Amino acid sequence: MLISDLGERALIERIRSRVPDAPPWVLLGMGDDAAVLEPARGELDVVTTDCQVEDIHFRRAWMSMHEIGRKALAVNVSDLAAMGAEPRAATLSLALPRVLTVADFDLLIDGFLSLAREVRVPLVGGNLAESPGPIVIDVTLIGSGRRRRLLTRSGGRAGHLLYVTGTLGRAAAEVERALRTLEAGTPSPGALAPCLRGPLSPASRLRCGVQVARNRAASACMDISDGLADAVSQLAAASGTGARIHSTQMPVDPVATLEQALRGGEDYELLFAVPLRKRRGFEAIAGRHAGVTCVGELTPGRNVVLDRDGQPEPLGGGFTHF
Amino acid sequence: MLISDLGERALIERIRSRVPDAPPWVLLGMGDDAAVLEPARGELDVVTTDCQVEDIHFRRAWMSMHEIGRKALAVNVSDLAAMGAEPRAATLSLALPRVLTVADFDLLIDGFLSLAREVRVPLVGGNLAESPGPIVIDVTLIGSGRRRRLLTRSGGRAGHLLYVTGTLGRAAAEVERALRTLEAGTPSPGALAPCLRGPLSPASRLRCGVQVARNRAASACMDISDGLADAVSQLAAASGTGARIHSTQMPVDPVATLEQALRGGEDYELLFAVPLRKRRGFEAIAGRHAGVTCVGELTPGRNVVLDRDGQPEPLGGGFTHF
Repeated sequence: MLISDLGERALIERIRSRVPDAPPWVLLGMGDDAAVLEPARGELDVVTTDCQVEDIHFRRAWMSMHEIGRKALAVNVSDLAAMGAEPRAATLSLALPRVLTVADFDLLIDGFLSLAREVRVPLVGGNLAESPGPIVIDVTLIGSGRRRRLLTRSGGRAGHLLYVTGTLGRAAAEVERALRTLEAGTPSPGALAPCLRGPLSPASRLRCGVQVARNRAASACMDISDGLADAVSQLAAASGTGARIHSTQMPVDPVATLEQALRGGEDYELLFAVPLRKRRGFEAIAGRHAGVTCVGELTPGRNVVLDRDGQPEPLGGGFTHF
Repeated sequence: MLISDLGERALIERIRSRVPDAPPWVLLGMGDDAAVLEPARGELDVVTTDCQVEDIHFRRAWMSMHEIGRKALAVNVSDLAAMGAEPRAATLSLALPRVLTVADFDLLIDGFLSLAREVRVPLVGGNLAESPGPIVIDVTLIGSGRRRRLLTRSGGRAGHLLYVTGTLGRAAAEVERALRTLEAGTPSPGALAPCLRGPLSPASRLRCGVQVARNRAASACMDISDGLADAVSQLAAASGTGARIHSTQMPVDPVATLEQALRGGEDYELLFAVPLRKRRGFEAIAGRHAGVTCVGELTPGRNVVLDRDGQPEPLGGGFTHF
């Protein structure tokens, strides 16, 4: 059965029947002109939007619809993690081809809701539209955090240490492996998975960002969606500093190369700037939720360099769209 | 010049340079992992998302890019108007083909920002992605309103009068005229405009909804995006009532038929339910911002009927996707 056989109302009802009871701060959820939320008492609203486009951010041959739905929420969770904000409500806007099967539609929704359950965020609204082309999944995530506790990109200062969570380069390595498999002929089922599955552990990264923010254990943070080189350059620029990364300290994933770890996208780890005197506290708090590695430091001036076995070179950038 | 010649960063900078200074409640706008907003003191957050897909919701042959950008925000403003909520922040997520010209990109942004200025809502963030197919524009609008003053669909009771703003059927009539023009041969430039331009006067409808809500002058409201018949059916269902519409009372637009006024989409007027004793107050308050017409009433039971010259018949539905 195709989604065009069911129609908009029945599809919305299908989503609604899957959504668990809302937490008390959701005063009005799906089904009216807008959702109504009670803001967290004494906290600020934190808002992020991220979009997944078929054949740009994901390929249906490489990922299940369940993974695609999960990833669409995960990339937004990663943004809130980088602010140290707790998610409170999500909206889901879908542009879908008429020929999508209802089974795939259900899997997409179930994938989204499986992560929503893990990070305890209610789906409060959204939109369903026809697409004459690719699947487009837009998620807006609203969270909250206390004033002066939220992490921005601009709080770093020269001398602050740079830490990353997890390992880097896995996503890029897996995509390159998949492309080689494709070139070599028709791949066996499953040979292309996992690729570009999005954040590996969004819930643990979220807890890491939230706990570091609450304890003021870092001065700045951003998520690493377009490679470490890109994230370091952006954090340093926002903080008005330079930066130095040491190649020997990089937590390169066992399946990846240094280049993939520096420039590959889709790792969705967190990059923190940490004042020297907070180093121990940061390692203790962040380490409870994710492995963390010190990869370098923010520097005076504006140069962003890679120290490759003692030889400094410009760090360069990462992946960009268009 | 095409947007692919500029790249993501330069395009985001192009948007940022057009965005006016943010109001004081925007503590962090575009450029970090998420935006940070101060909630309105003592008010609730109201959240809506709506999406415009090329060749489904708009055609580039029928509308300028400026109108398309404006409409993408306007349909969301219409949702907040129906809640009686004041907009406080917008996010804009764009999926765009690489071959879009920079001039068209600028027009799209300028159209969005022209309405943003009129309804005084800051653009605080969003996303820019490549689309291998149609243009997809997703907007999330966050507003606020006081508890027990917001308008929902479910507050109507049997006996409450049904009012609509403006006139109905214009959008449907213009689309039909455009289709006839197309069938008759190559249309002259401008012959297809205006078509599906979206809400005619989003700012005045917003003021109308907000003032009616603040003064508790209505019991329920929704916006009319898929025809009056659809809106009346949904408002009655949410309120647990039936409804009766009188054909002779319908504010049919001079260019439209009764059928177009009942079932045509894209009018974006407001439908209110108003208790009898509040009738005068409602007409005075709503009438300051938009013409209002009483078209019928909510009834006991669950039947939704059209009284056509004294003969009741089922009202039926409106436009639906898929």
